Amino acid sequence: MTQKATLSGVIFRPHFKTHQSLAIGRWFREFGITKITVSSLTAAKYFAQDGWNDITVAFPVNLREIKLINELASEVRIGLLVEHSEVVMKLNQELKFPVDIYIKIDTGYHRTGLGLNEMPEIIQLTSLIEKSPLMTLKGLITHAGQTYGAHSADKVISIYHSSTGVLNEVKQKLGKAGESLILSYGDTPSCSLVERFSNIDEIRPGNFIFYDLMQLIAGTCNFSQIGGIVVCPVVAVHPSRNQTVIYGGAIHFSKEFLALDGRRIYGQLVELDTNGWHQPIPDAWLVSLSQEHGILEAPDQVIRNLHPGMIIGVVPVHSCLTANLLQGYEMTDGEKGDYLTGI
Amino acid sequence: MTQKATLSGVIFRPHFKTHQSLAIGRWFREFGITKITVSSLTAAKYFAQDGWNDITVAFPVNLREIKLINELASEVRIGLLVEHSEVVMKLNQELKFPVDIYIKIDTGYHRTGLGLNEMPEIIQLTSLIEKSPLMTLKGLITHAGQTYGAHSADKVISIYHSSTGVLNEVKQKLGKAGESLILSYGDTPSCSLVERFSNIDEIRPGNFIFYDLMQLIAGTCNFSQIGGIVVCPVVAVHPSRNQTVIYGGAIHFSKEFLALDGRRIYGQLVELDTNGWHQPIPDAWLVSLSQEHGILEAPDQVIRNLHPGMIIGVVPVHSCLTANLLQGYEMTDGEKGDYLTGI
Repeated sequence: MTQKATLSGVIFRPHFKTHQSLAIGRWFREFGITKITVSSLTAAKYFAQDGWNDITVAFPVNLREIKLINELASEVRIGLLVEHSEVVMKLNQELKFPVDIYIKIDTGYHRTGLGLNEMPEIIQLTSLIEKSPLMTLKGLITHAGQTYGAHSADKVISIYHSSTGVLNEVKQKLGKAGESLILSYGDTPSCSLVERFSNIDEIRPGNFIFYDLMQLIAGTCNFSQIGGIVVCPVVAVHPSRNQTVIYGGAIHFSKEFLALDGRRIYGQLVELDTNGWHQPIPDAWLVSLSQEHGILEAPDQVIRNLHPGMIIGVVPVHSCLTANLLQGYEMTDGEKGDYLTGI
Repeated sequence: MTQKATLSGVIFRPHFKTHQSLAIGRWFREFGITKITVSSLTAAKYFAQDGWNDITVAFPVNLREIKLINELASEVRIGLLVEHSEVVMKLNQELKFPVDIYIKIDTGYHRTGLGLNEMPEIIQLTSLIEKSPLMTLKGLITHAGQTYGAHSADKVISIYHSSTGVLNEVKQKLGKAGESLILSYGDTPSCSLVERFSNIDEIRPGNFIFYDLMQLIAGTCNFSQIGGIVVCPVVAVHPSRNQTVIYGGAIHFSKEFLALDGRRIYGQLVELDTNGWHQPIPDAWLVSLSQEHGILEAPDQVIRNLHPGMIIGVVPVHSCLTANLLQGYEMTDGEKGDYLTGI
């Protein structure tokens, strides 16, 4: 990803919301990364304490956290996302230190942000921000999350083109006020599948650090790129219904699922030995989760080899949510890794 | 629930897996409760440190935790669930202190346990347990989790009757070996809707401490019995699509959903003021969750009154998973409550 960003001449500001780990964050430093993205002020504080000092918080400003915003802004360079003039006015009153500001643009995902049909609001925002002594308008930012619903590489790439098109159109319509603004673009599917980034200035993928079953099945990654699995003990076997019960439930995997052939799938079994994990095992799926229990359904010859007390490996559907639940990592060599402390 | 258990002459051994809180556990002491159920050895240890000394771990024995089992068994009375003779044989080799044993019976949920068609295995288990010097066979235990899929009180009550029927039939078929065994029965829907418990000796409901939207819509509880909501800041409003973005996502609520009129529902908005929360607001639903974002969809007049910086209250779909994610409580009077430390 670093190479691709360099070749395209864009800033690579990886999103740390998937791993939320200081240990993994340090791997990025080895690739020359100095700017990062996080999804909460708590995470910004966590990474700031480890020496990261240029952090974009890619979530709409939560006015109830103004104290934490000021605390962080006094120590590091913080980028905030805004989309409401009332939020900008309130920030203007309460800020005590300088911050970078990005206007959130909705390029089709319709979760947050202002769209092309809301140019008057965008223009009003730029002028409010420009008047504020402590806010520097840095850019326009978007997350084209609709790529997660695209089920082909072509569709993802087409969303990338239309979304970056919207960003450029907004910038153009801002005229002189838009000239110096950078265009920041997120999402792992786009950043994985697009070979050359043009028309944008910054990319912020996050999930690609681990990928997961969702990305694998969507064709965004291949199996060898998957960077994390969940290791679970077998606690019961039921060969008569081709099922095994594992100690791995909703509080470990999350209830995120994929719909495959009319079934809900929460993970896929992989080969696991003392050297780590290998190929996925065909037709061996985690098909049900309750609080602590997971039900693994697999062909007869797979189930017959599982016994209570053994451990198995499962690729989770959505690594961001699974990492958040497990709150830590173990490398295949036994080294432990941290996960963000606090919510 | 305590009154109902007393009137029926059954042991009330509440499941603490929903709240996982020492503070809330102490409320049960005021009702004379001395025996509890938990879903992990970690939880057993957590509650043992607060003086609970008769704890059933209602999850199949995880042989990889034998050290923790011995540690707990040296300090308190621990009940373990078994369903495999190989697990019993391994326990027999490794146990250093006495434990109570319950055989897990599958009365129709088909998650764990042995069914009526597996009497030879059940008989083999009883004889293995009886021969073990440190294991005392205490009873037959079931969780009729299929009541969660029943969509009427009649159906829940009918499952209760068939499930307790299976328990009694297994006991009878065990003959002399079954005579002294207690029959332990779980699940909040049954224990909420059945007025008088007959044919069983112990109940283990857990979710009823908070209930949630799932139970409300299933008719297991009424709104005034709901004991916990999630309080979230508003971070963006989009009146043009009747939506508000809240700081409350999958890492706060969990991805558990209800299918209502073809939509996925992750929570319902309630009236909230400084005195706590009141009535649910009609047609005001949490309709989408990503990692930190929640999308609330509501009628025009509701959305018009929401502004960034305000806080709102949402009844979660599944309180067990939401409590697990939020890792703590705040009472309406401001008092804080703990949640289990560790996974």
